[in-house]
Amino acid sequence: MTNLHHIAEQAVTGAIDRGLTVATAESLTAGMLAAMLADTPGASGMLQGGVVSYQNAVKADVLGVPRELLDAVGSVDGQVAAAMADGARRVCGADIGVSTTGVAGPEPHDDKPVGTVFIGIATAEGPTSYAYTFEGNRLEIRAQACAAALERLLEVLSSEGYPA
Amino acid sequence: MTNLHHIAEQAVTGAIDRGLTVATAESLTAGMLAAMLADTPGASGMLQGGVVSYQNAVKADVLGVPRELLDAVGSVDGQVAAAMADGARRVCGADIGVSTTGVAGPEPHDDKPVGTVFIGIATAEGPTSYAYTFEGNRLEIRAQACAAALERLLEVLSSEGYPA
Repeated sequence: MTNLHHIAEQAVTGAIDRGLTVATAESLTAGMLAAMLADTPGASGMLQGGVVSYQNAVKADVLGVPRELLDAVGSVDGQVAAAMADGARRVCGADIGVSTTGVAGPEPHDDKPVGTVFIGIATAEGPTSYAYTFEGNRLEIRAQACAAALERLLEVLSSEGYPA
Repeated sequence: MTNLHHIAEQAVTGAIDRGLTVATAESLTAGMLAAMLADTPGASGMLQGGVVSYQNAVKADVLGVPRELLDAVGSVDGQVAAAMADGARRVCGADIGVSTTGVAGPEPHDDKPVGTVFIGIATAEGPTSYAYTFEGNRLEIRAQACAAALERLLEVLSSEGYPA
């Protein structure tokens, strides 16, 4: 977990340096990602808030993920991750939204195998998503999903193109 | 943290046994409480979702905590904790809402000393709140706030009067 805390610290510092705020939308990590960011003193300077959208009803009703999309592809999907990140950004009024959805196990979900994870990132330029396959137990998969989300967030914060 | 995981397991089992769903609203714990519940396999049977309301704007805009209340008393307050729990319950469509707000440190906040924590619980019968004073570093205070929230949740789940 030490490495995770180190990446979280970099993300908090990077966002504060750029004057950007961040919001989270978490399914399989269920709050772990936001809590990692908040572990760093000074996080209140960049963490706007987040939504733990464990059930699809919360993804749809709170984050605005289209119900027809959830019905068609299930909750573990790249388009859903993108829509979650976009929803977090909009609902919490942040510059950047970052999301996690996936199968932590022990059982597969919606015909997706354990370890399937999608990370969503949304900026003013729109949302995008990234696919991963992780191995390990429930906690290990969730920790790897957090690390991936933090790395994608760092990537955006380091890109010269943002904010446009 | 072992004890925390044990209480979280009891809360998950207790909610599933009673057929009740739970939603969280977290300020100082910032997702740690929801993540603790989700650590337990089977949590999807009771955890509806939650809101990490780190900034007051999210407390007001997403959870519906009255702005005039936040302006008058700040974010670390029993009435705010009660309104957050009520908002989580309503926004996520859950039977029970549980919330945390407080000062994790290292600096005091809104004239409240480090370690001041309020836990909110909302059921169909309405919201209520409980005041605590904890000691320790940032992580220790947040962990104690999680433990207190889980204990209050267990108390509701064990009460004969609910659901009415």
